[in-house]
Amino acid sequence: MKAVIYRGPYDFRVETVPRPQIGGPTDVILQVKHSGICGTDLHTYRGNLKSVQPGQVLGHEFTGTVVAVGDRVLGFVPGDTVVSTFTIQCGECWYCKNGKSGQCDITNTFGKTGLPGGQAEYVRVPFADNTLVKIPEMDVSYVMMADIFTTGYYGVKKIVDQVQHVAKGHAPKPLDQIEVLQLGLGPVGECALQVMKYLGFKNVTCVDNVPDRLKKAEELGFKPVNFDDGADTLGEYDYVLEVVGSSSALKTAFDHVRRDGLISSLGMGHEPLPFTAMDCYLKNINLSFGRCHAWSLFPEALEIFQTLKGEFRDFVDTVIPVEKAAEGYRKFDAHEVNKVVIEF
Amino acid sequence: MKAVIYRGPYDFRVETVPRPQIGGPTDVILQVKHSGICGTDLHTYRGNLKSVQPGQVLGHEFTGTVVAVGDRVLGFVPGDTVVSTFTIQCGECWYCKNGKSGQCDITNTFGKTGLPGGQAEYVRVPFADNTLVKIPEMDVSYVMMADIFTTGYYGVKKIVDQVQHVAKGHAPKPLDQIEVLQLGLGPVGECALQVMKYLGFKNVTCVDNVPDRLKKAEELGFKPVNFDDGADTLGEYDYVLEVVGSSSALKTAFDHVRRDGLISSLGMGHEPLPFTAMDCYLKNINLSFGRCHAWSLFPEALEIFQTLKGEFRDFVDTVIPVEKAAEGYRKFDAHEVNKVVIEF
Repeated sequence: MKAVIYRGPYDFRVETVPRPQIGGPTDVILQVKHSGICGTDLHTYRGNLKSVQPGQVLGHEFTGTVVAVGDRVLGFVPGDTVVSTFTIQCGECWYCKNGKSGQCDITNTFGKTGLPGGQAEYVRVPFADNTLVKIPEMDVSYVMMADIFTTGYYGVKKIVDQVQHVAKGHAPKPLDQIEVLQLGLGPVGECALQVMKYLGFKNVTCVDNVPDRLKKAEELGFKPVNFDDGADTLGEYDYVLEVVGSSSALKTAFDHVRRDGLISSLGMGHEPLPFTAMDCYLKNINLSFGRCHAWSLFPEALEIFQTLKGEFRDFVDTVIPVEKAAEGYRKFDAHEVNKVVIEF
Repeated sequence: MKAVIYRGPYDFRVETVPRPQIGGPTDVILQVKHSGICGTDLHTYRGNLKSVQPGQVLGHEFTGTVVAVGDRVLGFVPGDTVVSTFTIQCGECWYCKNGKSGQCDITNTFGKTGLPGGQAEYVRVPFADNTLVKIPEMDVSYVMMADIFTTGYYGVKKIVDQVQHVAKGHAPKPLDQIEVLQLGLGPVGECALQVMKYLGFKNVTCVDNVPDRLKKAEELGFKPVNFDDGADTLGEYDYVLEVVGSSSALKTAFDHVRRDGLISSLGMGHEPLPFTAMDCYLKNINLSFGRCHAWSLFPEALEIFQTLKGEFRDFVDTVIPVEKAAEGYRKFDAHEVNKVVIEF
């Protein structure tokens, strides 16, 4: 079968590899229909991730049709139309049972070492009962539920939860009065903005330097700021949603969050933390990092996604055959396109 | 009047200085009765704080009797018996109005530059209506409410709040099942343990190396661990309460908190953060730092303190006249005593 393979930084190739087989009782084999290119894949593309070695089949956002099931798979039969979460999870460990599936004891991400990804004609899905979700139709938009929409929801949910933390005798501030600074308006960032609009946030300042992204933020009723024009216009915010992953973004977040505010960080940072223990103490800072608990949050994120689906009509602007995958990566890395999906 | 003065690291002297006068309409002059030596004072003692210059009157934990009031003081008259919060706060800014008084726009700490402290026969208290609280009797234990008990409560409260953060369909874990690792069992640490016992926590592992502190933790029904014996016996905990302020304590906290757990850090760190942005991402870590919002939390902390007061009968084990202040600092720094209070 054809698959997108990592050969080295900026060297992704479409190669022919063996089709995966059922290897364990919880496996499902999926015939892939749509497979997205995610911002996280760009970390791999740029050679920043040690967890990807040459020869790896890439991709962690995919939908498809079940074609084979292992002996202990209870929830799926051949012919089912499904989306996969970007991670696998056992469903049994403390983390899975406590709503924190992204930290499942056996978790892995599709497209990382040990788990061939879904940018391929077929993919093996272990722990299928806790990894796949049926979808009502084979619509390209459902690749967004694999990772980016759910991740955007996760970042916003941490803010909404924190809003409830008030001293006795103080009422939680209504969401329409909460001031949020969002750093990064890529696909995850846009999903977060849509979730915030849906939940009733009104005051969100949105920072990026890609004109189309800034225009979209403005269309959603929020305030766009192009960081190429300088961050001088940024003020102070109750919360910062950081969707970049760079040290400079975390520094901007720290400098512009209110004292005792929360930085909800979705970005995967590769650089040192740009603040000291004393900085943190003096600012009463609250920080929350990490990967989305996609499986745990899937039902509540899906409920919102179904409502918002129409808003994402033009979100996937580039659907390409697998042969053009390398070009798709190049364009996405250059911000020439919004969201690329490989169609099989 | 006599006052304890900072002359340099390990050089605290009792000197005679002018008695303070009413300087503004919100001031109160207090005749000090009891004035505690706090763990934070040890940062000054050891020369770690740049915010204290030679000549500074020290002390931020004190009770006393009102002897003079400014024109705009509404809540106090001469003769009132009061305790002061360790900070001053305006009562009017966003932070004061939103339960975050420790970050008040004009806040300062008694005993720091610009605000002479309460280890003196008299002290000037600005913003008195938002800084002083009447107490029912001149009991030495009320110096604990100025800082250490309220701070211990603050650290625990952040954990209790976070317990409520669960994914939809999951119930918050009962407090008696929550596993907490507490690093540091000094005076603030002991207050935090008392608060946790009061709230129903059962599983608290308590790390220090002072035998008397470990014994006290055991008496409270918790598990003592002497870190001189190595941290090998430490497992994994839902929450870590860090009451030390060192980089090594934060590292221990990070290593032993559950993935997606919370580190509630009360310690004032002077060293680099011992983890990277990637460490934080991979562990889904939640971090909360900073100084207690003493004024905002005073009513709810006091309610618990009144109930627990009997438990703290032997807490203040060293009451000394001001002439012996230097000796009191030396003994407290050497962990020879639990809590030193200067009595005027």
